[in-house]
Amino acid sequence: MANYPQSVKLVEVGPRDGLQNEAEPIPTATKRELIHRLAGAGLPVVEATSFVSPKWIPQLGDAAELFPSIERKAGVHYPVLVPNMKGMERAVEAGVEEVAVFTAASESFNKKNINASIAESLERFEPVMALAQEKGIRVRGYVSCVLGCPYEGHIKPQAVAEVSEKLMEMGCYEVSLGDTIGSGTPLKAQTMLAAVAQRVAMDRLAIHFHDTRGQALANIQACLELGVATVDASVAGLGGCPYADGASGNVATEDVVFMLEGMGINTGVDLEKLHATAVWISQELGREPASKLGRIPVEKAIAPLGWK
Amino acid sequence: MANYPQSVKLVEVGPRDGLQNEAEPIPTATKRELIHRLAGAGLPVVEATSFVSPKWIPQLGDAAELFPSIERKAGVHYPVLVPNMKGMERAVEAGVEEVAVFTAASESFNKKNINASIAESLERFEPVMALAQEKGIRVRGYVSCVLGCPYEGHIKPQAVAEVSEKLMEMGCYEVSLGDTIGSGTPLKAQTMLAAVAQRVAMDRLAIHFHDTRGQALANIQACLELGVATVDASVAGLGGCPYADGASGNVATEDVVFMLEGMGINTGVDLEKLHATAVWISQELGREPASKLGRIPVEKAIAPLGWK
Repeated sequence: MANYPQSVKLVEVGPRDGLQNEAEPIPTATKRELIHRLAGAGLPVVEATSFVSPKWIPQLGDAAELFPSIERKAGVHYPVLVPNMKGMERAVEAGVEEVAVFTAASESFNKKNINASIAESLERFEPVMALAQEKGIRVRGYVSCVLGCPYEGHIKPQAVAEVSEKLMEMGCYEVSLGDTIGSGTPLKAQTMLAAVAQRVAMDRLAIHFHDTRGQALANIQACLELGVATVDASVAGLGGCPYADGASGNVATEDVVFMLEGMGINTGVDLEKLHATAVWISQELGREPASKLGRIPVEKAIAPLGWK
Repeated sequence: MANYPQSVKLVEVGPRDGLQNEAEPIPTATKRELIHRLAGAGLPVVEATSFVSPKWIPQLGDAAELFPSIERKAGVHYPVLVPNMKGMERAVEAGVEEVAVFTAASESFNKKNINASIAESLERFEPVMALAQEKGIRVRGYVSCVLGCPYEGHIKPQAVAEVSEKLMEMGCYEVSLGDTIGSGTPLKAQTMLAAVAQRVAMDRLAIHFHDTRGQALANIQACLELGVATVDASVAGLGGCPYADGASGNVATEDVVFMLEGMGINTGVDLEKLHATAVWISQELGREPASKLGRIPVEKAIAPLGWK
């Protein structure tokens, strides 16, 4: 029997996971407005930026300027990505209340991406976790490549479970399972999630799908059946490589909200406002929304949710 | 418990449901090549064209010229749409072995689309069915608006079940349930399909989703759980209104094949050839494929299916 959650917490990652892939620089004021609009649309968590070195990701090099300028809305969380202790110290200085750390379920991917083994990546986070605890900062963990790795191919569900459990043991309050390259399909997603849920309680798990092969919503639907109740998504599907090879990025928040609300699963999101935000940021970036909902007029897009 | 089929029969509708929406005329030779390529990629059913009046759908006005020129591959079916006896007679003359008739589960939609009630639309098909039986021609039935109507909104699953049962009683061998406007979400799709399956055996039902709101693959995944084993799809996602408002059309065959094969459900389709066909027809039409798979290089697109 399907075990759908009654409500889902959406974690909006567009301002970070989305904008970090943009070829052209985005003004800090535009990023700030995006974050304000997303919180205003009812998203309970808006990942704001990353305190990765500007040398690695110049797109988010304004994190120290951006973050303190955000008018934080009561009840909304604004995590930021931190890759190491240096980033953590800058994030603390900027006044963050939540951070996210990241590793992968693939040794090869970690080696190429951060030049560390999985174990080494976790060691690097030990001082980060300690400082977080001292400052009362919540820590979210990301595991990437949970359904496949561009270098290794298949990733064992057990490997995902192990690294997820370690992140929880180190003090993360939640682990987000990322299909970074969008290679997963529904049954594999369920198998992976079920394996992780043997080691980490389902209510501490989030799913994070990229739509590279169009499978993201189907994978989310399959995982909802197992009871997962936290879903990462990116407004307007930000996060693709529009200038590279047309590959899609994160699943689009507005398409996820349409599915969830259509299934009677509450998100707390005002879809009209979210749609307007998707259209607006896409205009700012000079392109069409990568979402389906964002490409049709809002009244038409959301009308079916009102049909009884 | 999910009741997934071991294999799925894909019904390729791109040459008809897709190309009928094109603003610019497509050369007959291009249509023929598309049909040949699709059959060559292993699609078991390729809906070839429509014998609707050229006044209504000039895009397919060359049906009588196109159909006899198709080199039919053994084992492949090439149904054509017929709206009435006139179309049926033209189709018979062209040498068809299978036709498809269509009505809707919505009275208002039928009134606007074909100026007939549901009952009247079925009456119009009586002589068509009689001629089909006389000539040994198979008849497929389409029901549109099964998950919503642009004029009426919600459509009762019972209404879909009733019209589907009538089409079977009239002699159709299969009924395709169409979410014409892409308004459905997974649980509603399951509820509708389950209601129809009370009246028509599941192995006589097909599902036909449009991706207007990005829900098509999630809806298909949800319906597969109930055991449906025939899925309509359109190569490169042909069938949108690229020149109108950017709305997506049919779900893309290559994205469906990726999902099915990734779930271990056999389709018999050569995804490499299908991908090449999607890229080729999109080039012919002067635009990007509307599929996700078609936008990334083929090796990258299909690699995950080989991962063990």
